[in-house]
Amino acid sequence: MIAELISVGTELLMGQILNTDAQYLSQKMQEYGVDVYHQSVVGDNMGRLVESIRIACGRSDLVILSGGLGPTEDDLTKEAVASYLNLPMERHQPSVDALHAYFARTGRVPTPNNYRQCDFPTGALILPNSCGTAPGCVCSDGKFDIVVLPGPPHELKAMFESGVQPYLSSRMEKKICTRMLRIFGIGESFVENAIKDLIDSQTNPTIAPYAALSEVSLRVTASCPLNGDGFALVDPVVEKIRERLGDCLYSTNNESMPELCVRLLTERNATLSVAESLTGGMVSSELVAVPGASNALLESVVAYSVPAKIRLGVGEETIKKYGVVSAEVALEMAECIRKRSGSDYALATTGVAGPGPDKKGVPAGTSYVGISREGLSHSFLVKTSGIRNRVRTSVTLNALDVLRRALLGLPLPQ
Amino acid sequence: MIAELISVGTELLMGQILNTDAQYLSQKMQEYGVDVYHQSVVGDNMGRLVESIRIACGRSDLVILSGGLGPTEDDLTKEAVASYLNLPMERHQPSVDALHAYFARTGRVPTPNNYRQCDFPTGALILPNSCGTAPGCVCSDGKFDIVVLPGPPHELKAMFESGVQPYLSSRMEKKICTRMLRIFGIGESFVENAIKDLIDSQTNPTIAPYAALSEVSLRVTASCPLNGDGFALVDPVVEKIRERLGDCLYSTNNESMPELCVRLLTERNATLSVAESLTGGMVSSELVAVPGASNALLESVVAYSVPAKIRLGVGEETIKKYGVVSAEVALEMAECIRKRSGSDYALATTGVAGPGPDKKGVPAGTSYVGISREGLSHSFLVKTSGIRNRVRTSVTLNALDVLRRALLGLPLPQ
Repeated sequence: MIAELISVGTELLMGQILNTDAQYLSQKMQEYGVDVYHQSVVGDNMGRLVESIRIACGRSDLVILSGGLGPTEDDLTKEAVASYLNLPMERHQPSVDALHAYFARTGRVPTPNNYRQCDFPTGALILPNSCGTAPGCVCSDGKFDIVVLPGPPHELKAMFESGVQPYLSSRMEKKICTRMLRIFGIGESFVENAIKDLIDSQTNPTIAPYAALSEVSLRVTASCPLNGDGFALVDPVVEKIRERLGDCLYSTNNESMPELCVRLLTERNATLSVAESLTGGMVSSELVAVPGASNALLESVVAYSVPAKIRLGVGEETIKKYGVVSAEVALEMAECIRKRSGSDYALATTGVAGPGPDKKGVPAGTSYVGISREGLSHSFLVKTSGIRNRVRTSVTLNALDVLRRALLGLPLPQ
Repeated sequence: MIAELISVGTELLMGQILNTDAQYLSQKMQEYGVDVYHQSVVGDNMGRLVESIRIACGRSDLVILSGGLGPTEDDLTKEAVASYLNLPMERHQPSVDALHAYFARTGRVPTPNNYRQCDFPTGALILPNSCGTAPGCVCSDGKFDIVVLPGPPHELKAMFESGVQPYLSSRMEKKICTRMLRIFGIGESFVENAIKDLIDSQTNPTIAPYAALSEVSLRVTASCPLNGDGFALVDPVVEKIRERLGDCLYSTNNESMPELCVRLLTERNATLSVAESLTGGMVSSELVAVPGASNALLESVVAYSVPAKIRLGVGEETIKKYGVVSAEVALEMAECIRKRSGSDYALATTGVAGPGPDKKGVPAGTSYVGISREGLSHSFLVKTSGIRNRVRTSVTLNALDVLRRALLGLPLPQ
């Protein structure tokens, strides 16, 4: 089955809101193993709406429209569907009753406009709206189905779950099983080169690479019969990928690096402290974004200035001899914060975020990460280029990755 | 001029990422007074890509493609443009040189597929990529222009500003003058109600509201002849808005709250330190993201655990009597970090980020912000709802806003 999404609304075309509905519906289609080849956005304009529906129905089996179900004359989605299907509009009495009940609950009286929300293409299956006044509908024509949903995300989600999922489930012949692999420490083109033969030779499961800021993801997806076990197809391929990528493959269930670090620390009952210079709190903030981080992160300090580094305990001599951007200072920062907080592990970052070089001429993107624990003191150079926040993000991920490696007993970057 | 946006990428069709590029480009088209009637998303598939370009070029003057410029064989955008325009691909030597320089800086060696990023439809105007390895291009055909940009948002934005804006400006018969107003402390519907008559009665300039996480923006846009002064139209409207919204309007030039705080501190030669609990480094990280923050931010500590708060200097008695989530603890945290760092100003945050209530039953979203400076000690309650990161972002902005108010001598939230 091939689905296509059409989001209706001038506010999307003007960039006033992000199209979260399209993301949600795409994810749901993935879950059901329905291919989405096209998404589009069109304004509240009858001619362009009908034309978009025409193009979509010509190349897809299922067209999902969202938005344009409001009570105003701008809202034309259902009328456009009716026009394309050559059907008259018809008032749906149960929806009128629901509208009256809704307004009674909120102590208001419907305006004549509101009744437009009860009009549908003749013969449509009506989908009640549990969160608002605009019901949706499904129009089937034998060759294709058109689903119409409201635009507000919470209304759309509720209606999808209560109305569209049962309808989709009844039509599915296969199911989809997916693992999302996350990789750090090697670039997208390196990853692709390393597993090119696997990508090229696989048809079920398929392997798709995605690059994000400073990391790479691979999605391994198999389809199988409804009563089958798709992971029996997926997992051997995941193992082959692991053989190629080694310990740069850090997650096979889409767990993020901060989530992984918080989990590993928690499982080991281990605690962490962090001393940050150029990352300026980003390492801590990424960890604290994970629920339960308070069990592991004892303390963190942003020692941005030289006096703050000295207050932390870094030797003035070390700074004089090696400069603040040095492996030695990164190491001392980690050791000092570990001593002060009494944590099991400590991370530290120092470097030049940019845009320009620092006062001593060290170029932007030159950074050092330090890690300290009982019996382990290590620091290493991280080189990145790009804008200030890209450098900081990259150093943050490098710091979390070395923590992961230390926690798992893996080799550390040199 | 009518523009159309085509976002290329299977990860968008699968719902793995939100289409922020389309939002950004739509906003930019608005700024230039260019109408956008259609946005679409299509996967990395040659046939469907060419067909999407064909449909778009048939109904628009300017087609902007984003994504699909990576080094892998999946990345087909430029090839699809060349195929549609019936042009051979050609290697662009300056891009090869830039690629070599980029890899040399990061100490890596390009793989053969990296060179695909240097191939373009013959005759294209090349747009260098200041943040990555994939240049973009503009192909013109007399009737329409096709612009090709990279997918990663920071690369797309930088290339749009450096490469596409000058090109767009050169083609415009009118120019667009815009001020982006930023508002904190009142909600979107309050803002809209307060200026509804202005929005409804204005045609040039126009006023468009945008809601972001915890703040509201208003874009005031006038069009005028190329040699005219659009700001003479914009500024009186900005002043009317300021009369309605007062000191909640914090910027008329799209300066963000962290940028504003760093600038105000720097102008006053004032220094800052921060003690963070639930925000976990986010306040510091937002400030450090601003170039030049090192002049102002002396030190910051993430005192997430109770022992870390006590090490910072918060009284055990205060914690026992009022709980860690209290106005009193927020205040002491601010005072302690100010004393320790010797900074002029200090901020502190403490609260419950969620998802659940804390161990004492304080509900998620209950937070306190403290501020301290010579002669000023103040803390206040911040109540937010929503997911963990929404709470943390909101508290971070509230902390920066009270710093702004203290620096400018404005009333503080009670």
